Amino acid sequence: MTGNVFGENFKIFTFGESHGKAIGCVIDGVKAGLKISEKDIQKELDRRKPGQSAITTQRKEDDLVEILSGVFEGKTTGTPIALLIRNKDQRSNDYSKIKDVFRPGHAAYGFLKKFGIYDYRGGGRASGRETAARVAAGAIAKKILAKNKIKIMAYVIEAAGIKAHEFDKNEIEKNPLRCPDKIAAAKIIKKIENFAKKGDSVGGIVEIVVTGVPVGLGEPVFGKLEAELAKAMLSIGAVKGIEFGAGFECARMTGSECNDSMYSSGKKILFRKNDAGGIVGGISTGQDIVFRIAIKPTSSISLEQKTVTTQGKNTKIKIEGRHDPCICPRIVPVAEAMTALVLQDALQVQELRKNNRW
Amino acid sequence: MTGNVFGENFKIFTFGESHGKAIGCVIDGVKAGLKISEKDIQKELDRRKPGQSAITTQRKEDDLVEILSGVFEGKTTGTPIALLIRNKDQRSNDYSKIKDVFRPGHAAYGFLKKFGIYDYRGGGRASGRETAARVAAGAIAKKILAKNKIKIMAYVIEAAGIKAHEFDKNEIEKNPLRCPDKIAAAKIIKKIENFAKKGDSVGGIVEIVVTGVPVGLGEPVFGKLEAELAKAMLSIGAVKGIEFGAGFECARMTGSECNDSMYSSGKKILFRKNDAGGIVGGISTGQDIVFRIAIKPTSSISLEQKTVTTQGKNTKIKIEGRHDPCICPRIVPVAEAMTALVLQDALQVQELRKNNRW
Amino acid sequence: MTGNVFGENFKIFTFGESHGKAIGCVIDGVKAGLKISEKDIQKELDRRKPGQSAITTQRKEDDLVEILSGVFEGKTTGTPIALLIRNKDQRSNDYSKIKDVFRPGHAAYGFLKKFGIYDYRGGGRASGRETAARVAAGAIAKKILAKNKIKIMAYVIEAAGIKAHEFDKNEIEKNPLRCPDKIAAAKIIKKIENFAKKGDSVGGIVEIVVTGVPVGLGEPVFGKLEAELAKAMLSIGAVKGIEFGAGFECARMTGSECNDSMYSSGKKILFRKNDAGGIVGGISTGQDIVFRIAIKPTSSISLEQKTVTTQGKNTKIKIEGRHDPCICPRIVPVAEAMTALVLQDALQVQELRKNNRW
Amino acid sequence: MTGNVFGENFKIFTFGESHGKAIGCVIDGVKAGLKISEKDIQKELDRRKPGQSAITTQRKEDDLVEILSGVFEGKTTGTPIALLIRNKDQRSNDYSKIKDVFRPGHAAYGFLKKFGIYDYRGGGRASGRETAARVAAGAIAKKILAKNKIKIMAYVIEAAGIKAHEFDKNEIEKNPLRCPDKIAAAKIIKKIENFAKKGDSVGGIVEIVVTGVPVGLGEPVFGKLEAELAKAMLSIGAVKGIEFGAGFECARMTGSECNDSMYSSGKKILFRKNDAGGIVGGISTGQDIVFRIAIKPTSSISLEQKTVTTQGKNTKIKIEGRHDPCICPRIVPVAEAMTALVLQDALQVQELRKNNRW
Repeated sequence: MTGNVFGENFKIFTFGESHGKAIGCVIDGVKAGLKISEKDIQKELDRRKPGQSAITTQRKEDDLVEILSGVFEGKTTGTPIALLIRNKDQRSNDYSKIKDVFRPGHAAYGFLKKFGIYDYRGGGRASGRETAARVAAGAIAKKILAKNKIKIMAYVIEAAGIKAHEFDKNEIEKNPLRCPDKIAAAKIIKKIENFAKKGDSVGGIVEIVVTGVPVGLGEPVFGKLEAELAKAMLSIGAVKGIEFGAGFECARMTGSECNDSMYSSGKKILFRKNDAGGIVGGISTGQDIVFRIAIKPTSSISLEQKTVTTQGKNTKIKIEGRHDPCICPRIVPVAEAMTALVLQDALQVQELRKNNRW
Repeated sequence: MTGNVFGENFKIFTFGESHGKAIGCVIDGVKAGLKISEKDIQKELDRRKPGQSAITTQRKEDDLVEILSGVFEGKTTGTPIALLIRNKDQRSNDYSKIKDVFRPGHAAYGFLKKFGIYDYRGGGRASGRETAARVAAGAIAKKILAKNKIKIMAYVIEAAGIKAHEFDKNEIEKNPLRCPDKIAAAKIIKKIENFAKKGDSVGGIVEIVVTGVPVGLGEPVFGKLEAELAKAMLSIGAVKGIEFGAGFECARMTGSECNDSMYSSGKKILFRKNDAGGIVGGISTGQDIVFRIAIKPTSSISLEQKTVTTQGKNTKIKIEGRHDPCICPRIVPVAEAMTALVLQDALQVQELRKNNRW
Repeated sequence: MTGNVFGENFKIFTFGESHGKAIGCVIDGVKAGLKISEKDIQKELDRRKPGQSAITTQRKEDDLVEILSGVFEGKTTGTPIALLIRNKDQRSNDYSKIKDVFRPGHAAYGFLKKFGIYDYRGGGRASGRETAARVAAGAIAKKILAKNKIKIMAYVIEAAGIKAHEFDKNEIEKNPLRCPDKIAAAKIIKKIENFAKKGDSVGGIVEIVVTGVPVGLGEPVFGKLEAELAKAMLSIGAVKGIEFGAGFECARMTGSECNDSMYSSGKKILFRKNDAGGIVGGISTGQDIVFRIAIKPTSSISLEQKTVTTQGKNTKIKIEGRHDPCICPRIVPVAEAMTALVLQDALQVQELRKNNRW
Repeated sequence: MTGNVFGENFKIFTFGESHGKAIGCVIDGVKAGLKISEKDIQKELDRRKPGQSAITTQRKEDDLVEILSGVFEGKTTGTPIALLIRNKDQRSNDYSKIKDVFRPGHAAYGFLKKFGIYDYRGGGRASGRETAARVAAGAIAKKILAKNKIKIMAYVIEAAGIKAHEFDKNEIEKNPLRCPDKIAAAKIIKKIENFAKKGDSVGGIVEIVVTGVPVGLGEPVFGKLEAELAKAMLSIGAVKGIEFGAGFECARMTGSECNDSMYSSGKKILFRKNDAGGIVGGISTGQDIVFRIAIKPTSSISLEQKTVTTQGKNTKIKIEGRHDPCICPRIVPVAEAMTALVLQDALQVQELRKNNRW
């Protein structure tokens, strides 16, 4: 109800503020017997951590994870898995200077009105830092999904107004933008660096593709797979839109164009195309799940902006500190993690539904 | 978990299949003392019901609602409100002919793989008919919201590839498309009628605007207001995408362009623009909440389509029956209802949060 | 949260007031493919319905159940099953006379303070009548449990201060008290009739035994099987206590007396006795689950009682109408139903836990 | 669903095993602005910790709590509060000797069948050690309740077969048994010490009284206050029964004896007695809430017991280590904590219900 829990069967409960003692999560619903180590989780956290390249923030946080419970002799026991990440690089002083001024595009105004109190240090609970807990939990979901041959891959297809045109899967993790088009990536990175120098930031679009999905995931009515994925994605700080398959283009199609017709290969039922993005009637069809999310430019910029103080006086602000000129490459592992949480949850629900005791 | 419940504090549990005995819902969390009658609910159901115009289905269903519980002497008692709508116009025979063939774009394939059984009559639980229960529940949420000066308005801004350019609020409910641009509406309706004659259907875009929203609705992290609204919207059958405020266009902006800067009018804190769509950091800012959803064209078309039988044989299908050539105008009240459910739920959570016992 | 939902995987949502239009429930989580008919449910409702004998209320309610959804061609489809029972014998006038007086032992005072409004007719939502919805839902759970060889049996072991000493399983449903001791039953019934003539009522103790329980049901920590059963039983109106196995007598034992030691028969692990009542550490051991509940005497009696009006004036009341001099035999099917709901829920959770995907 | 979460509005999620790295919990639903420090929590943990006296275990665990999140400048912020207690005195070797033998009265058999894997060290997740997390969370609930003048007091009224006859509130925390009768306490303690020397243990009864409860807490039907408290109490490891007010004695009363009649003092509505234990129809009446729980004797005893190995061979066991000859005094703070969680949750639900927006 208060937004700190995600999932039903594979459920996570996260906690922590940007500049508090620690962030972390407790994961419930992981079945017993899974081999899991801190290394499995750290690998994913390293993809999210700040300071990876010139186009992301220069802050240094090692984000070392510690497994506190639920694992015995290297295997899960079926009890809750608590994951802890201590906060280290806490330059709280950077924030005390601006604590009485609302930073444009930030959550402080809403938080203050909501709670009457606000941990202003680095955004507190509203900071993107909380996504580290999601990535940690997602690492476990991903490991289970991989055992079921389900793979999730996210990448940047557009940023700073430039689109990728090529798709080379192996290129994605090679460039700091996590873009599958090497040439477009180079252009975009250059453009980002120019904006960064001016103290500005840019947005972009991340595409997520899931392969190996069985038919039948997702629940009718309110639990449609698109609904769960949309909730998951729009819960990520900078995301302002989502579309599945042909997405907004569907609105311009006719039914005869948009329907993905089925055929039989003799052995299997297949689809001629995938404008539905792998989900029909809210339930997975066995095709790849494909969706895209719109990422707004980072709100924290050092360009001078007009704003008001918490006391309601007009003022100006230049946000110092080390911020991401383009958050897209760091959203990639977060989007993957959230997708993994949704799919593992759906798998566990479906497992239950499929069993037949009569 | 199984997708039949929506909301936490203002919670609904829906049931019913397209051609079963009845559909309905039970609503929990409505506080005691609200005046409510079947008339309040019927008014909204009438906006959703089939047979309203030439561009929607010609089926006739009166969708008469009966309040079974939770109301005493015209007022809510704080106990669950059960709403019942008997199904009437059940031409199940229309379906028995095609029960062994997968209709392209329909949920049957996923349902069969999921449950191993499928009520094929009119889509069963997957039918858009279930949205009547949402609209009925939403009518009560809307009534409460209106008492709090919160108003929800949805309308069609694009269909059949034609965009609306004017916005006349009073026009919306005057044309069968529910489009705020009279001239565009006329063009679009004509185009829909042409497609309908050919046995085809079209998609479109619906915009939803909420006015009078207090600052502070929505929860941090997973319960962001955008996340809840996105889940609500993507749970509606034909919706394939959503975007808030400037939406996908944010991806092409810079931070200095995208941030909605704040200023003080002396008395109040205001924003210079609303590219955020009224939600920042997942929490309402007091600006209008604005979002758009992409509607795919109706899957049921009478044009011949290639498909397979449930036994996996290649075949062709012409879907007879009375289907909506453009579902957009009938999605308008459904989108409003789902928005109302999210906002009323958020209001009740926030009410709880705001109280201060120490 | 508002107490109208029970269960997690096998979940029911009940609604309805004693003298409203109807009572009923929606059941979620019933897997597809189960044969179920109104007859299966009616059979259990008939065991609970009023007017069965001289020692229960003389009201006549047929409590006919109608399945509204979730069943297609005689089988469950995996979608919500809505059950409806119309109210018939509504002598609301009986109540309008006493609507301004608090009946001792009734919920009206708490309800009024809680909700500020109160459907006084026959107790409204607080009436024992709501248990019909539980029994209807429990009938489905029982049917599934029976397929898994799990059987639930409840019976009266004490009432009006007289204990049963014999246990003849076949006797239970033969006498109107549902007591397994024919001779004790006769004595108790006579005593109840005497109290009934005087306008008074009596309490008693119901024992519940579950056979065929697999090892491993129940969840660690807060979801212990005793915890779930205790919640289920104490949610029944007149129940004021519960004990498992040796129960309160455990408090007087030593560890060496109380521990149920295990031994091997060569093939199976067995226990020498069952003071634990079939649950250790919150998890079923495979022994019979045994517990007892204390039932207070019916609050509605025609003897004159002192009380206050809703305006806070001292007064006296004689409650007319047709009430149960001993509610115990009618609580038997309710206790069985609630036990069935807990066990079926636990089975579904455990099913999920047992599956091993790695 | 998996039993690691308790509460709805004031919700806790606990984790940790007896001999793992740490135990702890995350608390959600604490409103912003409450002053809270580690000292407030430590005080309650010290009442539960082992090694307090000769009649409890001699293990030494300091159980130092660390607040990881949700508190800023000494006040709660409305975000989740994570509490961490590192495990220290981990003599895992004590357990490796007996890891292949089922200890009578312990959860190992059920756990192994349930999960297929078992952290045998000190009972793992099934250890009473998990209750430290409950006590820590309960300390915060208690602090809020105290601000609302609601006080919870638990004490031992019977142990080793000896009953307390006097009630001196100030005596409770003075003797190691936490018994309100000084003379009875001395006798009981002596008897416990004798059993302890023989390697045996004893059970007892704990009574809980809540004063200052407002009218109207608890929810109709499944959320009755007795139901929630019963679940809370029966979720504590050694508890085998609960009764409210006159409890099992109600079963022997008549309606005219059992009903607590109401009267008006002119200013207030009062009750002549409290056989209902402060709850009627599942809703608090404003009288003190009174209930008792039956505690079985500690299962771990050093007397030789017959049992089986995990391989199903008959064997004998003497459980070494430092166990509680009577767990009752250490259950006192746990019972108080669980009561506090239930009441604070109920208060928050009721707060929501009471607000009236129309």
